[in-house]
Amino acid sequence: MARISESTVRRLSHYYRVLEEVEDEGKRLISSHRLAEREGVTSAQVRKDLSCFGSFGRRGLGYNVAHLRREIRAILGLDRRWRVAVVGVGNLGTALMLYRGFQRQGFDVVAAFDRDPARIGQRLGDLVVRDIAELPAAARGGIDMGVIATPVRAAQEVADALVAAGVRGILNLAPRKLFVPSHVALRNVDMTVEFETLSFALNHLTPPARRRRPRA
Amino acid sequence: MARISESTVRRLSHYYRVLEEVEDEGKRLISSHRLAEREGVTSAQVRKDLSCFGSFGRRGLGYNVAHLRREIRAILGLDRRWRVAVVGVGNLGTALMLYRGFQRQGFDVVAAFDRDPARIGQRLGDLVVRDIAELPAAARGGIDMGVIATPVRAAQEVADALVAAGVRGILNLAPRKLFVPSHVALRNVDMTVEFETLSFALNHLTPPARRRRPRA
Repeated sequence: MARISESTVRRLSHYYRVLEEVEDEGKRLISSHRLAEREGVTSAQVRKDLSCFGSFGRRGLGYNVAHLRREIRAILGLDRRWRVAVVGVGNLGTALMLYRGFQRQGFDVVAAFDRDPARIGQRLGDLVVRDIAELPAAARGGIDMGVIATPVRAAQEVADALVAAGVRGILNLAPRKLFVPSHVALRNVDMTVEFETLSFALNHLTPPARRRRPRA
Repeated sequence: MARISESTVRRLSHYYRVLEEVEDEGKRLISSHRLAEREGVTSAQVRKDLSCFGSFGRRGLGYNVAHLRREIRAILGLDRRWRVAVVGVGNLGTALMLYRGFQRQGFDVVAAFDRDPARIGQRLGDLVVRDIAELPAAARGGIDMGVIATPVRAAQEVADALVAAGVRGILNLAPRKLFVPSHVALRNVDMTVEFETLSFALNHLTPPARRRRPRA
């Protein structure tokens, strides 16, 4: 398989979600055009993305929904379960732990850690929050991914601990650039940055939108 | 001012956070090299990014921290308050509402909406959750940005309602591509996609990391 860019993987993830919906609706075939429409890309882009993985479609017929979904599922690594640890159970960490959607896609939160004595021992869903000091021992049970939802100042230290514990994928929610070895995959979600790109846009790029074209 | 790419804005947002920290530590000057190091970019990139907005630094001396922070603050639109409405107060929406960091950067959650009768009327922090049907009336008070934290199926409808209510910036947390008019800024944060790019990476791109080089 050719090297696949991160943006292709992101689109595959979106296509997968569309295919799930379409399958739920009982449809058996989907055209590249319709997949494209739902994602706001061109149908040529869809065909190009999917051609990376072999030929799933038939010209004029479209793609077999169930088959394509199964293939993308395997490509994205969703045909197995992933064991996830959440570190930092403030508002955001707790929200992530309790969100059912991740479990549905194969991501099981199997451990939660915090440093705050007030939180350690607390029950969240099916889990009891453990002391971050127990991470190395807990990781022996096999943790694939870690979610960092700690305050900024703790984030790098937690990342180092996760890497030392053998975790190979990290989702960082702390607004701080983290450094990890190259064999560890790191993704960052920084809500503050998202808000700030919005305030920038509202400040600079958009015209005053209200009442530009009053209806007659 | 030249047109600024979204990735430049993202870096400015990161620089801003570093400058805040550095100012808290009492430092008066910072080099492009140190700003770069903290963000994992080159110092040439830092100088290029900052040069879009005029010359803030002096060769050999570095940047005046307080001055640069103030300038980036204005550029990002953080020298004013932004009024934010959250729609959908499940786990994630609630977490965002209660997170203090946004307020510190100028983003005030001034209204929260849901469609679920069990949630309407509920108190969250200082706010009472209102019926989504009240959005148009509430928006007359002036809402700058909306956060969509609803289930997937409601997301586009909520986006349309926010746009109709004059909201010019939307942060979408629902895992669904949304369509908005060009005068509205839209950012998407899709945690499921992030998890799936991680599972893809763990499946394909990384070597088996454990015990590759056992210590002697």
